[in-house]
Amino acid sequence: LTRAEAARALLGGRGRVPVREAGHAFAPVNIALVKYWGKRDDALNLPVTDSLSIALAGIGTRTTVSRHEGPDRVTLNGEPLAADTAFAQRLSRYLDLVRAHPRAGYQVDTRNDVPTGAGLASSASGFAALTRALDQLHGWNLAPSALSILARLGSGSAARSVADGFVRWRAGTRDDGMDSYGEPLAARLEDLRIGLLTVSADEKALGSTPAMARTRATSPLYAAWPGLVESDLRQADAAIAAGDFHALGRVAEANALAMHATCIAARPAVLFLLPASLAAMQAVWRLRAEGMPVYFTIDAGPNLKLLTLAQNVAALGTAIPGLRIVAPFA
Amino acid sequence: LTRAEAARALLGGRGRVPVREAGHAFAPVNIALVKYWGKRDDALNLPVTDSLSIALAGIGTRTTVSRHEGPDRVTLNGEPLAADTAFAQRLSRYLDLVRAHPRAGYQVDTRNDVPTGAGLASSASGFAALTRALDQLHGWNLAPSALSILARLGSGSAARSVADGFVRWRAGTRDDGMDSYGEPLAARLEDLRIGLLTVSADEKALGSTPAMARTRATSPLYAAWPGLVESDLRQADAAIAAGDFHALGRVAEANALAMHATCIAARPAVLFLLPASLAAMQAVWRLRAEGMPVYFTIDAGPNLKLLTLAQNVAALGTAIPGLRIVAPFA
Repeated sequence: LTRAEAARALLGGRGRVPVREAGHAFAPVNIALVKYWGKRDDALNLPVTDSLSIALAGIGTRTTVSRHEGPDRVTLNGEPLAADTAFAQRLSRYLDLVRAHPRAGYQVDTRNDVPTGAGLASSASGFAALTRALDQLHGWNLAPSALSILARLGSGSAARSVADGFVRWRAGTRDDGMDSYGEPLAARLEDLRIGLLTVSADEKALGSTPAMARTRATSPLYAAWPGLVESDLRQADAAIAAGDFHALGRVAEANALAMHATCIAARPAVLFLLPASLAAMQAVWRLRAEGMPVYFTIDAGPNLKLLTLAQNVAALGTAIPGLRIVAPFA
Repeated sequence: LTRAEAARALLGGRGRVPVREAGHAFAPVNIALVKYWGKRDDALNLPVTDSLSIALAGIGTRTTVSRHEGPDRVTLNGEPLAADTAFAQRLSRYLDLVRAHPRAGYQVDTRNDVPTGAGLASSASGFAALTRALDQLHGWNLAPSALSILARLGSGSAARSVADGFVRWRAGTRDDGMDSYGEPLAARLEDLRIGLLTVSADEKALGSTPAMARTRATSPLYAAWPGLVESDLRQADAAIAAGDFHALGRVAEANALAMHATCIAARPAVLFLLPASLAAMQAVWRLRAEGMPVYFTIDAGPNLKLLTLAQNVAALGTAIPGLRIVAPFA
């Protein structure tokens, strides 16, 4: 199945002509606690395994989309984006999936509420917000699962940014990906706090998609990844159901390290961690050894996201300067 | 089989009473190019897989052993070692395997020619030198394979320090380990140079033996390690046979990273790398990207051993200050 075919199947008989002036939507950033690492279908962004994330309430992308005759126009944080930038081209290719005819353009105004340089991926919240905004503009009224699938065609992890709280993105088994979407978990962990620790705001050397592809194709350790994720998801589910912060932190940290381990063993190696990342990991371990409830996770980059509890925020902020603390369920 | 039973089987009818004043021997340090990581038998130091090393000619341990009535006496680099130190106790437990009766003591004078703080393990060369010295003292005249097996009972990787040049330590399949010993390869790579880069001379937090045990028992990625080693050994054999430095460097570096990856995924994580190790790895990658023939390997610690070619030694020494260069076949 191509992306265009998948989008057509999703939209069914729904019209592709805007029914209102503009669509406007917000979608949150999500932090993977059990990682998405490896695609079973590159075109449709279908993952090898399920994954689990926590959304950061109120932190994400706000997007307005309206009809615009002629080539698409994109602004990012208020600044016009040249049509030949990679980001504008990626958006236009995504808009190709829904436009009524090749000359039907869109004006996309997108604003990331992500703290500047916090090392948070914005493509997940960005494609989720754009998808919701498009849904509103065209009056599609898509079901949550369909919104997730459509967002996934833009960026895999966007499938998880369509809901608040804990979200499980199911890998599904169908070739057309119609059973691969994000579903919110009912359970909450009100006291959970996420600390954003930026050790480098530089662009990473290798993007997630080629890094995943290289790891899956060349890392001799990747074969063990799917089984590991299955077991980690069981543990994470049990931890969330029991409201057990420590069990959740433990499995999230171990899962992140396992993901980076599969990358380090790729040939050639994929190393996202910087010396400063290692120093920060060691700092977290030292604090935990001293009794502080703190764990880390690390995505495909050098920055750490810390998991801690509300009552610990002040002490952690003192111990690790430069931390930005977020209440995910706020 | 216990260690004592294995030693008895090895020595057969040979006498345990010294036949001369003293035994004196040297054994070289060895650097694993395809790592030994995981024991199939803890008591006998039997490895899960074969491994491959290069000995550093002239760098290692020189040991003199003589008969001494009463408790064992040990000097290390000319200094007497208290009997209650971990090192002295480990030596005495090893000497238990060969002494004629419980009161038959030894005087062991051992000297490491390993550059101070170079981050080179001395237990491999130490037990190999002691084994050779004991062989001489007692006039056993053991075959090379038997010397390797006896040394292995002291420290696993000592099985490889009984010969110069490239050495393959076979895992063997027998429960008694009589087919698990080091064998030298005939092929040489005269231009090979090893650069010793010490990023920390601190004692490591976790020793190799508990680190191996934890990785084997808890790392979900360890299952892939034995197959990976088998494939890496085939590549390393082919590279050595072809005299292909780059192919050997590539597989040695990838194998070391895979070993560290299995550790990082252990639960709890085993992380030998320090921030400075990562910085040094990145420096090697930068130099290689600029065309310099240089690769690294890293044992169960933070320090790097660089592989390079003779004609490159001056340039590498300039690029990476503090490097100590060794000619392994000198």
